[in-house]
Amino acid sequence: MFITFEGPEGSGKTSIANRIIKTLIDKGYDIVHTREPGGTPIAEQIRDVTLDKKNTALDARAEALLIAASRRQHVVEKIRPALAEGKIVICDRYLDSSLAYQGAARGLGIDTVLAINLFAVEDTLPNLTLLFDLEPAIGFERIKANKNREVNRLDLEERNFYIKVRNAYLELSKKYKDRYRIIDASQSFEKVYEDTLKVILEYLPQK
Amino acid sequence: MFITFEGPEGSGKTSIANRIIKTLIDKGYDIVHTREPGGTPIAEQIRDVTLDKKNTALDARAEALLIAASRRQHVVEKIRPALAEGKIVICDRYLDSSLAYQGAARGLGIDTVLAINLFAVEDTLPNLTLLFDLEPAIGFERIKANKNREVNRLDLEERNFYIKVRNAYLELSKKYKDRYRIIDASQSFEKVYEDTLKVILEYLPQK
Repeated sequence: MFITFEGPEGSGKTSIANRIIKTLIDKGYDIVHTREPGGTPIAEQIRDVTLDKKNTALDARAEALLIAASRRQHVVEKIRPALAEGKIVICDRYLDSSLAYQGAARGLGIDTVLAINLFAVEDTLPNLTLLFDLEPAIGFERIKANKNREVNRLDLEERNFYIKVRNAYLELSKKYKDRYRIIDASQSFEKVYEDTLKVILEYLPQK
Repeated sequence: MFITFEGPEGSGKTSIANRIIKTLIDKGYDIVHTREPGGTPIAEQIRDVTLDKKNTALDARAEALLIAASRRQHVVEKIRPALAEGKIVICDRYLDSSLAYQGAARGLGIDTVLAINLFAVEDTLPNLTLLFDLEPAIGFERIKANKNREVNRLDLEERNFYIKVRNAYLELSKKYKDRYRIIDASQSFEKVYEDTLKVILEYLPQK
């Protein structure tokens, strides 16, 4: 069982994931909690190239290829071995993040970025994807509150970016409706946690 | 005008390229001689990951994605700007190397590796590709002679690899017959140089 958590910045998915995993482990499930680059040294080296502040010349297509390469190593070295041992893998962001951010919001095209990523992951696709969905205005205000600053012109561009990401995720949730479940991330932490746990427990064998 | 030099190790293409470029510059052509990663810092950082001896776990698909990412930066930062300035770009190895080595010899599939690389280079394809073709046995003996050692079991595997690379290049020369010209690299250096110069001068405007 391979579960991915997706959604925009500010959706709270990482905090929810941490709490859910604790609950599932307490119930006796054998969980591997991971996120890219997954602690595999090669994937981290690759990730370092994309995050290096000196690399302002990094082209969007090169970045998409690097992220796919890093994802490949994460899949081969960590996700597949855990699944092969019968573990439940919960991954914070996976290929849908590339589709939404690089494919849609950065304009490379969802199908194009999907093709690159299917080369990378082959048949290692999530069985269940939880989309922590949020009105762009709410997510945006949450991020601004965290950053403790005034909204400026650049933020308005970011806001448009945020809207594109959300629309892409909603489009993906229709395209892959068998594996997608939408969680309303505008609710209280407690309610989001309960909704998430309910969806996941429906998918897992009873303990 | 974008010219690429392709062929196996031991075909002498790099020495030929150096001499040809000198001749073309003496004739007054404005040449950019490059090879991946092309001296662009990001492409070199990416290349370092593929060459890092610690990275024995580097998966073949991740490697193909990294090479495509490095190629992308080389194209965007160096090849396209030179072509836009009307320069003649001669590149020692380009996407056909990935098709022959990763696509065919490493078994990822030529069409699959082509798709990844077309995402990387888009329409920046060579106008002319010189294939320095060599009987596998000759290339193999040249490499062995350089390495100054006896042939062992691993070398025999290398030999099969060498045969696959050659067959792939010949297949590519049929698929892309408009841009491919085959140079018989088993001849003397002087004769290979003359054949190469003749083919290139036919393509360039008269000086």
